[in-house]
Amino acid sequence: MKGVKTVDSYGKRIQQVQKVLKEQDTDFLVLAPSANMFYLTGLKTVADERFQAVVISQEGIPLLVLPEMYKEIALFGQGSKWQLITWADQENPMDLIAAQISVQKSKVAVDDRMWTSHFLSLRHVFGPAEFYPASQLMKQVRVYKDEEELDLLRRSGALIDQVMEAVMQEIRPGIKEKELAAFVESQIKTKGGDDISFKPIVAAGPNGSSPHHVSGERALENGDFVIVDIGAVLNGYCSDITRTFCLGKATPEMKKVYQAVQAANEAGFKAAAEGVPCEKVDQAARQVIAEAGYGSYFIHRTGHGIGLDYHEEPYMVEGNNTPLEVGMVFSVEPGIYLPGKFGVRIEDIVALTKEGPVRFNNFSRNLIEL
Amino acid sequence: MKGVKTVDSYGKRIQQVQKVLKEQDTDFLVLAPSANMFYLTGLKTVADERFQAVVISQEGIPLLVLPEMYKEIALFGQGSKWQLITWADQENPMDLIAAQISVQKSKVAVDDRMWTSHFLSLRHVFGPAEFYPASQLMKQVRVYKDEEELDLLRRSGALIDQVMEAVMQEIRPGIKEKELAAFVESQIKTKGGDDISFKPIVAAGPNGSSPHHVSGERALENGDFVIVDIGAVLNGYCSDITRTFCLGKATPEMKKVYQAVQAANEAGFKAAAEGVPCEKVDQAARQVIAEAGYGSYFIHRTGHGIGLDYHEEPYMVEGNNTPLEVGMVFSVEPGIYLPGKFGVRIEDIVALTKEGPVRFNNFSRNLIEL
Repeated sequence: MKGVKTVDSYGKRIQQVQKVLKEQDTDFLVLAPSANMFYLTGLKTVADERFQAVVISQEGIPLLVLPEMYKEIALFGQGSKWQLITWADQENPMDLIAAQISVQKSKVAVDDRMWTSHFLSLRHVFGPAEFYPASQLMKQVRVYKDEEELDLLRRSGALIDQVMEAVMQEIRPGIKEKELAAFVESQIKTKGGDDISFKPIVAAGPNGSSPHHVSGERALENGDFVIVDIGAVLNGYCSDITRTFCLGKATPEMKKVYQAVQAANEAGFKAAAEGVPCEKVDQAARQVIAEAGYGSYFIHRTGHGIGLDYHEEPYMVEGNNTPLEVGMVFSVEPGIYLPGKFGVRIEDIVALTKEGPVRFNNFSRNLIEL
Repeated sequence: MKGVKTVDSYGKRIQQVQKVLKEQDTDFLVLAPSANMFYLTGLKTVADERFQAVVISQEGIPLLVLPEMYKEIALFGQGSKWQLITWADQENPMDLIAAQISVQKSKVAVDDRMWTSHFLSLRHVFGPAEFYPASQLMKQVRVYKDEEELDLLRRSGALIDQVMEAVMQEIRPGIKEKELAAFVESQIKTKGGDDISFKPIVAAGPNGSSPHHVSGERALENGDFVIVDIGAVLNGYCSDITRTFCLGKATPEMKKVYQAVQAANEAGFKAAAEGVPCEKVDQAARQVIAEAGYGSYFIHRTGHGIGLDYHEEPYMVEGNNTPLEVGMVFSVEPGIYLPGKFGVRIEDIVALTKEGPVRFNNFSRNLIEL
């Protein structure tokens, strides 16, 4: 329930966010249970039909709104750093919030992941306000990973590399996608991870042409490309790696596609440098695949930021001209998806350092025939 | 990815919902990835930063909006029953939706679980609309479980009863809460469940006074009350049971509290009958606990509906005068929470049938000293 950081480091983060609130002329930041809430308070609860929120103004301590039954969770933690309001199941929490804050015409940043049902009740508290997604504000703080965060992301990456190694040993004809997915989950816990960062994707043969395939009943066959896309959580921080193995011998077409994706992965990695717009990383990877003749089969962006969320800012996508800066961490994951045939994706997490881009995944990127 | 039902049964459910849309003078129902979407289409995807939705009007087939990379998921399933729109990562899906629907002044029900960031973009598509949470509409269909749903809920209950039996065997001094929680997760899968329906709650000794305690490092000690609150998912349908075991001998105070909770569970169960308002079930359980002198320590509602979501309508809470009807399924879970000492909760899932209330959990409710 509590984070690994001290009360002071949460206080410092809240001050940073209050500075951004002032710069953006935003009166309130309202967070739901999410990585944002964890980042600023160390509280980690699960969102459900009972309203929970942290309300942060430009000045003063945050307001923490929790169901009465969660009271001990809040008292147990960094209690002195917030004003706690609890509400019983027969009460309306919005009335309690309204009594605590003064609003006129206001500008409010709302947690991206807040349930819309909660937002529809909450918005009336703020009167005729302008609302926008909190990620637009939080990214100004969260995209810059400090040393402690970089260390956790690096360790989370090393852990998932080990899991990939173990998975490779299990790949054989007859084993089902979902069996491999279950193996990944247990390996992550065995190797010390807190949790999975997303449901493991194991996509064999033609299933590989659906990038977010749900691991199912298909038994692996000789001649399959097998996409394994997995991630762990370590002390809150996510990892994410994809490798594509060949069960048996790859055909010339399979080799050609694999080599294009591997070269695109390398091109995306090398394109990452201080001041380079995010979309240039996407372009660099995309160009390699287009030149190999598979441009229309690379059907998603090249990457996403990663940290407490497995997908967060910054996104490596056409139209994102945010310049890369030191401390940003993101995926480079080009892929080629041939409907009815197979897919190939090769993904690493990359951190931009003063010395240039560094990969947090070091499992071989070469074609492995098993 | 696909449900257990046929295309026709989804079509029938959509017709039912369209009837409710007309009755409620609502122009559109917009669903995010959720139990609602699964219930009406059989599609089960995970919500993330990429917008996904099903838009249902009073007439015609639904509009399914998915990221381009999910295209095969939609084609693979009940493709003929919806109009599919896909959008690429560099596109804005809202423009594509706006081009497909005609709106004037409209009334729109929005999935409770849609991310607020998505709603903030979506709302402009509908112009000056009135928005309300879709649960208010969906409950009119989803609260009435049909025979197939009742059967799955009953089987999901029997499965979790077996897991509770296995957990009881593992309870001993020295084992940690989180070890028992991990055991629950593996047992659910071993016994054929698809997944957990929520993170298992194992709360020992004083931790038991926090109803949603996060299972942690505490090692069980002689003299602890141990609350075990667990649930599985079987073919999409959730179970949820709580039992409180005593490790060693219970003190007279522990016995008194346990008996009050057990009697409250029985009173809540017996209060459930056709036409009885939901809040009467809450009152019946609460009265027993109040009379035992612990009224202020029962700090949550008595129960929640259950089905594809582990918490859904109808809620057994003060102020809910919805009359109970045959086919409704919900929890009865009174508890007493003594801060710094211990907690006791006893929970069963109850279905209201023509013959009266029937429990889907049959693990002993008597005090068990281990």
